[in-house]
Amino acid sequence: MNNFTYCTPTRYLFGRNTESETGRLAKEYLGDPRKVLVVSGGSSAKKSGLLDCVTTSLRNAGIEIVGMEGIKPNPTDDRVYEGIALCRKHGVEAVIGVGGGSVIDTAKAIALGVPYDGDFWDFYAGKLTPEKALPIGVVLTIPAAGSEGSGNSVITKIDGLHKISLRSDFALRPKFAVMNPELTYTLPPYQTACGIADMMAHVMERYFTPTEHVEVTDGISEGLLRSIIAVAPCVFANPQDYDARANIMWAGTMAHNGICGCGRTEDWVSHFMEHELSAVYDVAHGAGLAVVFPAWLTYMANVAPARPARFAREVMGVPSTFDERTDALSGIERLKAFYRSIGLPVTLRELGVENADISLLVKKLHENKGEIIGGYHKLDAEATEEIYRLMV
Amino acid sequence: MNNFTYCTPTRYLFGRNTESETGRLAKEYLGDPRKVLVVSGGSSAKKSGLLDCVTTSLRNAGIEIVGMEGIKPNPTDDRVYEGIALCRKHGVEAVIGVGGGSVIDTAKAIALGVPYDGDFWDFYAGKLTPEKALPIGVVLTIPAAGSEGSGNSVITKIDGLHKISLRSDFALRPKFAVMNPELTYTLPPYQTACGIADMMAHVMERYFTPTEHVEVTDGISEGLLRSIIAVAPCVFANPQDYDARANIMWAGTMAHNGICGCGRTEDWVSHFMEHELSAVYDVAHGAGLAVVFPAWLTYMANVAPARPARFAREVMGVPSTFDERTDALSGIERLKAFYRSIGLPVTLRELGVENADISLLVKKLHENKGEIIGGYHKLDAEATEEIYRLMV
Repeated sequence: MNNFTYCTPTRYLFGRNTESETGRLAKEYLGDPRKVLVVSGGSSAKKSGLLDCVTTSLRNAGIEIVGMEGIKPNPTDDRVYEGIALCRKHGVEAVIGVGGGSVIDTAKAIALGVPYDGDFWDFYAGKLTPEKALPIGVVLTIPAAGSEGSGNSVITKIDGLHKISLRSDFALRPKFAVMNPELTYTLPPYQTACGIADMMAHVMERYFTPTEHVEVTDGISEGLLRSIIAVAPCVFANPQDYDARANIMWAGTMAHNGICGCGRTEDWVSHFMEHELSAVYDVAHGAGLAVVFPAWLTYMANVAPARPARFAREVMGVPSTFDERTDALSGIERLKAFYRSIGLPVTLRELGVENADISLLVKKLHENKGEIIGGYHKLDAEATEEIYRLMV
Repeated sequence: MNNFTYCTPTRYLFGRNTESETGRLAKEYLGDPRKVLVVSGGSSAKKSGLLDCVTTSLRNAGIEIVGMEGIKPNPTDDRVYEGIALCRKHGVEAVIGVGGGSVIDTAKAIALGVPYDGDFWDFYAGKLTPEKALPIGVVLTIPAAGSEGSGNSVITKIDGLHKISLRSDFALRPKFAVMNPELTYTLPPYQTACGIADMMAHVMERYFTPTEHVEVTDGISEGLLRSIIAVAPCVFANPQDYDARANIMWAGTMAHNGICGCGRTEDWVSHFMEHELSAVYDVAHGAGLAVVFPAWLTYMANVAPARPARFAREVMGVPSTFDERTDALSGIERLKAFYRSIGLPVTLRELGVENADISLLVKKLHENKGEIIGGYHKLDAEATEEIYRLMV
């Protein structure tokens, strides 16, 4: 087991009607701000009345609101600059994201940029480590990215389509996260499925590790993955199944708050490869992951089958044949079958990407992430090209 | 799934040599105190040089130290009063516990008592809810109680031998916990085993729940229990197996930081019953739990076998016979065999308690905890008497 630091200071308020507590939480945990920026996405939070409920709760707590709407999936740097300018103009003291990962990641980038004199992109470009940010609160509507409990934020720079993930153990963790599973009843099936693929990937990127003897972290990760796979069908059978929605929502947080990474080296190649896909082809991140992971696992079944075999046996329920490669390949078939059962693509073609420009993807991948990538198994450009080809 | 709040703000520094960082952590996370109370237990922390290392680290950070040594297992209120007086006399601003659960629980009680004008026991007697305390730091030497990451503290009032557990979601959580598995190499086998029984009990008290559809929390709990059972033999085969010690240490924290309870009603009867045993007969808490749990489960196999059967199948690896009671009983046999394999007693006689005064135990239990107790299944005095009799 590796040495590690672990701290998840986010306060989760989980359950029915919790969104009406946003004002109290903002007062108590965002440093009693006079004015907050409320960042939100498309029209659904408005139509459902959620945005009204949250702003009323904030106003009742004596907090003034500056609004910023219309954050899109794969959020871009232009909206971050806009948000930073808004905060400075109005003297905003805290940022609240009402939405899913794109909204929350944008809220985090804005919160980080406001107290920094230079270009916020410096942090994403790796020139600086985040030390301080405006306090951040969250009302979650999409279980997927895990951003409500993580120190991560992914932003795409429009100039050059660089999609970069920033990770800061502490500065970017939300102070509170309001999580009402009922808010996810109206999520369309495809978006629900993408979220499930995303949270599974967050566990898997940590689970595929070269570190041995991390039994506790393995046990937690496997239990979490199994529970997601067990509950997922219920959400599609009945989108208003409160308990199923609640389990999926909580799983999304647990998948990415760090608990599945304690004591081990993580991988993250599949996320890196997907980020290039969604930056170039603007596909949904979760759907992209459902395409990348089986290909990555297929490559690994040949060169490093130990963990893929364990994944197959412990998570996908494959009976052991005592041959790692065989079991790993059976596990991949089961994983693909699961993705398909919830309506996800497992090839680039099914994802709607015909004739992908694999050379461009490989070039951008290694430009952004270095010549050799991967925590579980080191990969050069030749290897990642082969993995992209396995997705076709 | 029930509504819940969850927050685990403790910062864990886990790994080799981490104890030498205590000074930096105290400065950074205990509010830059000028003077701290360092609470410790028996002579082992002194003999091993740990206490020296910690105090040197604190002094190097410019922090003055007031020491308080000799905290015993099943810690008592007299030492808490003594600690509170010491803190007030010397103007101590933070409390650091160097030891296991008894030391940390005493440190918490002192930290809670210092800023309160009345008798600190008011909190344990349920007259008041903890709101503020001196900041608390921990250097853990015994993986068992999980007190390093929990909001709990158990203190025994000498007058009447009332052993009471106080739970406060926030005020009593340590700000940091230093966890070096090497510090546990010298723990005697019996104490190691007691710690393992204690952490397993912390998961099981939450796992045995009437709440349905908590798949994620169940998955995490089962994974955690399985990993403890898998790793435990390695610790006894080689007490200096770093990875095995590390997994057991981290499991102790995960077992009791709340993650296994999210979204459900918990039980805690076995702990309550054991607290009476150890208050009256001064037995080791973990050994007491190894005696109580099989008896409690045996009673449940007859009146509420659903969860004991799931426990048997998912944790103890019992192949399903499709009969809950049968599987539950098989699981209990495997649990007892596991306890015995690590050197623990599973009956009162084996625990060294001959002719236990069961009437007294039952009387004190219900005096302290109420007429009807139990989250999983309600128990009156007749039922708890039967369970105590099953332990003989």
